[in-house]
Amino acid sequence: MINWNNLDTLKSFEELNKVERVNLQEVMSGESGAERVKKCSVAMAEGMVYNYAAKEVDDNVLAALKKLAEEAQLSEKFEALYNGEVINTGEKRMVLHQLTRGQLGNKVEADGVDKREFYVKEQKRIADFANKVHNGEITNAAGEKFTTVVQIGIGGSDLGPRAMYLALENWAKKNNTFKMEAKFISNVDPDDASAVLNSIDVAHSLFILVSKSGTTLETLTNQSFVMNALEKAGLNPAKHMIAVTSETSPLAHSDDFIEAFYMDDFIGGRYSSTSGVGGAVLSLAFGPDVFAQFLDGAAAEDKLSANKNIFENPAMLDAMIGVYERNVLGYESTAVLPYSQALNRFPAHLQQLDMESNGKQVNRFGEPINYVTGPIIFGEPGTNGQHSFYQLLHQGTDIVPLQFIGFKNSQIGNDVDIQGSTSQQKLCANVAAQIVAFACGKKDDNLNKNFKGGRPSSIIIGEEVNPKTLGALLAHFENKVMFQGFVWNINSFDQEGVQLGKTLAKKVLAHETDGALAAYSALLNI
Amino acid sequence: MINWNNLDTLKSFEELNKVERVNLQEVMSGESGAERVKKCSVAMAEGMVYNYAAKEVDDNVLAALKKLAEEAQLSEKFEALYNGEVINTGEKRMVLHQLTRGQLGNKVEADGVDKREFYVKEQKRIADFANKVHNGEITNAAGEKFTTVVQIGIGGSDLGPRAMYLALENWAKKNNTFKMEAKFISNVDPDDASAVLNSIDVAHSLFILVSKSGTTLETLTNQSFVMNALEKAGLNPAKHMIAVTSETSPLAHSDDFIEAFYMDDFIGGRYSSTSGVGGAVLSLAFGPDVFAQFLDGAAAEDKLSANKNIFENPAMLDAMIGVYERNVLGYESTAVLPYSQALNRFPAHLQQLDMESNGKQVNRFGEPINYVTGPIIFGEPGTNGQHSFYQLLHQGTDIVPLQFIGFKNSQIGNDVDIQGSTSQQKLCANVAAQIVAFACGKKDDNLNKNFKGGRPSSIIIGEEVNPKTLGALLAHFENKVMFQGFVWNINSFDQEGVQLGKTLAKKVLAHETDGALAAYSALLNI
Repeated sequence: MINWNNLDTLKSFEELNKVERVNLQEVMSGESGAERVKKCSVAMAEGMVYNYAAKEVDDNVLAALKKLAEEAQLSEKFEALYNGEVINTGEKRMVLHQLTRGQLGNKVEADGVDKREFYVKEQKRIADFANKVHNGEITNAAGEKFTTVVQIGIGGSDLGPRAMYLALENWAKKNNTFKMEAKFISNVDPDDASAVLNSIDVAHSLFILVSKSGTTLETLTNQSFVMNALEKAGLNPAKHMIAVTSETSPLAHSDDFIEAFYMDDFIGGRYSSTSGVGGAVLSLAFGPDVFAQFLDGAAAEDKLSANKNIFENPAMLDAMIGVYERNVLGYESTAVLPYSQALNRFPAHLQQLDMESNGKQVNRFGEPINYVTGPIIFGEPGTNGQHSFYQLLHQGTDIVPLQFIGFKNSQIGNDVDIQGSTSQQKLCANVAAQIVAFACGKKDDNLNKNFKGGRPSSIIIGEEVNPKTLGALLAHFENKVMFQGFVWNINSFDQEGVQLGKTLAKKVLAHETDGALAAYSALLNI
Repeated sequence: MINWNNLDTLKSFEELNKVERVNLQEVMSGESGAERVKKCSVAMAEGMVYNYAAKEVDDNVLAALKKLAEEAQLSEKFEALYNGEVINTGEKRMVLHQLTRGQLGNKVEADGVDKREFYVKEQKRIADFANKVHNGEITNAAGEKFTTVVQIGIGGSDLGPRAMYLALENWAKKNNTFKMEAKFISNVDPDDASAVLNSIDVAHSLFILVSKSGTTLETLTNQSFVMNALEKAGLNPAKHMIAVTSETSPLAHSDDFIEAFYMDDFIGGRYSSTSGVGGAVLSLAFGPDVFAQFLDGAAAEDKLSANKNIFENPAMLDAMIGVYERNVLGYESTAVLPYSQALNRFPAHLQQLDMESNGKQVNRFGEPINYVTGPIIFGEPGTNGQHSFYQLLHQGTDIVPLQFIGFKNSQIGNDVDIQGSTSQQKLCANVAAQIVAFACGKKDDNLNKNFKGGRPSSIIIGEEVNPKTLGALLAHFENKVMFQGFVWNINSFDQEGVQLGKTLAKKVLAHETDGALAAYSALLNI
C-alpha cells in the first residue's frame, strides 16, 4: 500500500530537521577529508561513480535521509511507476520512458498493446530507416544520398536530443561511426530557421518533425518555414521529411512525410531522449548501434535506481541530499558543472528536466503545499565557468550547491604536454582543486582574499563521455528528479505552468486584447 | 566629496524598507495596467526603451529608490570613475572601459599617456590590420587570403566577443558586411581545441591569442595546441597568429605573432568587449565599420547613464529596481530572457558580467557586509525557454525576477505567414503574453492550473539586433552592474574569488597534495 503524503507530514522529515549540521570545512580538512573522499563513492553504471564526500552529510544525516526515503516509499513508488501505475495523476497517464530502454518490472499494457514491445518495434523501424538512408536505399528524388539531418522541435524535442548529439559528435567522428551532420531548428524566431537553412544544402537534407501532440505552435510554424524553402528550391517537401509523433496526432499517417515513427502520451517531452524523439536524429547521425549503446547505458542505470538500498542507489542518494539542501539547509539553486566540452549543453537539458518537472506549488492532488520544491538549475562547462560566475560561487553572499561531472579521458585523444602535464590532466586537476577550494576555503587576513569554504558539491566521475556513459548519466538525472518529486509529493510529469502564456499569445495574435496586454502589443508593434 | 558607505548605513535604505509593497497583480490588471505600460518607459539609446511597468514599483517605491540613488551618490561615483579615479581599490586601478568607446569626462592619463588616445590608436591599428587581411595585403605564407579567424581566450576574452559575434553574424551576412567566419577556443579540455581545429582549414586561418596578463593557463595551453597543429600542417605559427594583450605581458613584442594589439590593466576582462579583445575578432569577421557602429551604440548608452535624473537614466533605474528586489523583496536570482535567437549567448555573457562583478561578500575596503549582493543570473532565448524552465518561473515556490528583451523585426527578414501571422509576430506576441501571464496570473479552481501572478519583469524593446542596438544593450548592462556595485559598496572590478582554485590546481599538477585533494586526484587518475 503506497501512501502519497506531503513531505511536512512525515515524521522522519521532522527528525531530519533536528539532526546536527555538519561543518563541511572541518570534515573535509586533513586526513578526515581524504578518508571521506575514499569512503563516499557509490557505483553508477558503466564504471562511473557518484562521490558525495564534499556534501554537508555525515552518518547521522545519511541515516535520517535513509529513513525519510523509506517513509516516503521511494522504492515502492518507482516500482509502481515502472509497473504501469498512473503516476501522472493530473493528466491521468502512466509514466513509461524507462520502458524505451528496458523492462524493470511486469509487462505494461495499454489498449491491449505491450508497451515495451511497441517502443522496441518503433526503435527497430527507426534503425531500419536509418540504415537505408546510410546505405542509399532511401535518397532524395534525384537518387542522391542525404548528408544532413535537421531536427525541428522545441523543449523536450530539442534540448535533450541536441545535448546528446553534441555530447557524442566528436566521439562518433573519432570512432568512425559518424554518418550525417545534425542541425536543430527550435525557436519561433524566424532567424533561427533562416540561419539553419542558409547553412545547409537543402537538396541533401532530411528533416525530422518532432511533436508528440502535433500541435506545437513553434514546430508547425517551422515545418511550414522549411516546406517553403524546399518548394522554393524546386524540391518536394514530402520526400525530405519524416515525423516523430504520437499515433493520435494530426501528423500521424500523413502524406506529408516519407515515414512517421511513433511515441505516446506515456513519455513526457523532457523524458523523451531515449524514445524516437532522440532515437531518430541520433540513429541517423551516428548509426543505430550507437543509439542502442546509449539505451543500454540508460537501462543499466535504471536498474541501479531500482535498488532498495539507498547507499547502492546513486540517483536516490543524490535526490535525498538535494532535498536536504533545499528543505533543511535552505539553498535555492544548484549549478551543474561538467568538466567536458562535449557536455556543453547538458546543463541546459537538465535545466528543463528538473525545473519543468519539479517547479510546482501544489501536490499531486492539486492541494497547496507549505515547503519549497524544485531549485533553479544553471551551469556551463568547466573550466569556462571558472573564468565566469565561479567568483559568486566562491565569495558571493548565497551558497549554491554544486554538481560536478568529470571524466578521466578526453574523447578525441589529441592532446599536448605543456609544463609537464596534458590538457586533460589540467582539466581534471582543476575540478579536483575546485571541489576542495569550495569545501575547505582558505583563511586570509585580507578578507577580500578570504575564502569561507563550506560550499557543498558532489562529483560524478567516468572514464570517458561515450554512448554508454552518456545514457547512464541521463538516466541518473531523470531518476533523481523523479525521486525528488516523490519526496515533495508533486506530479513531476505534467507542466500546467506553460499553458497561460500560450493562451494569451493566441489572444494577442487574434487581436483580442485589452489592458496591459494590448499596451504591450502596441509597444511591440504586433 | 564622495562617501563610500555600506548600504545598511544609508537612511534612505531604511526608508525604502518601510515603503508599502505594491500588489503587482492588482496594478497590472485592467486599465491601470494599460496606463502603467504606457507610462513606465525610459528611452535608451538607438531607439530602444526600458519598460518597467511589470515591476513591483509605484510612485512611492520609485521616490524612495531615487533618494537612495542620490544618497549612495551613484552619479558622482560614475563621474569619478570616468574621470579616472582609482575605483578598483583592491587592485589599485582606474576603470576605463567606457573610454574605449567615447569620452564622458576629462582627459584621463596614466604614465603620461592620454588613455582615450591610446585606445583609439589601438582600434585604428586593428582596423588597418583587418582591412589589410580583407584586401589581401596580409595573407598566409603562400600569399592566400585568410578565410577564418579563431579567437583563443577564456572568460572575458571569450564570452563577450563570442556572444557579440553570434548576435551579429546573420545581420552581417544579410547586410553584406560578413568578411570571415569566426570560431572560438576557450576550454582547457583538449576536445575543445581539437574539435575547432578539425572543423577549419588551418592553412587559411588566422588565430587571435587573447590574454591581458599573458599568463592564463587555458589560453597558453591552447596556444601551444594550435601551434602544434600548425607545425604538423607544415605551417609557420608566427605567420598565423596575432595577440591582444597588455604591453607589460610576456606576449607583447614577441616574434610569435604577426602583430600585437594592446589593452591595459584599466579594462577588466568582463568589460573588454569594446576593447581590442572584442575589436580584433569583430573587425576581422564583420569589418571595422561594423565594430565602429557597435562602439557608437555603447557610447550613446553611456551618455544616458551619466544623466543625473534616474528617470532618464535606464541603467540606473534598472540597477535600483534590482537592488530593491534583492535587498528588500529578498529575491535571489534573475533570469535574462532575450526573445531573439541572435542573443543566444548574451545571457551567458551577462552571467559572467554580473556574477563575477558583484558576487562579493566584503565591501570595497575589505570589511564584511551584512546584506546580500549580486544575484544568480541565468537564461536562454525565448520562445525556447517557454518550453523548458518557465514552468518553475510560473508555478514554482520561489519568485524569480525576469529581464525580457524583444525586437520588433528579425535580422534576416525571411519569414512565413501562417494562420494569419508571421513568425516574428508570433515571437513578439509570446513575449507580450508572458509578461502579462507572470504579472497578472489567472485564477483557476483547479489549483494545478492556477497562476498566482505577482511575478515581476521588465522588458527592453528595440527595432532590430544590429551593431548599434547591441552596443547600447551591452553598455546598459555594464552600467547597471556598476551602479549596483556602488549601492552595495563593493568593488565590482576585481575577482579574488577565482584565485584559490588556480593555486590548488597547480598543486595537483605538481603532485604537491595531501588530504582530500590527494584523494580526489587519485579518483581522477591525475
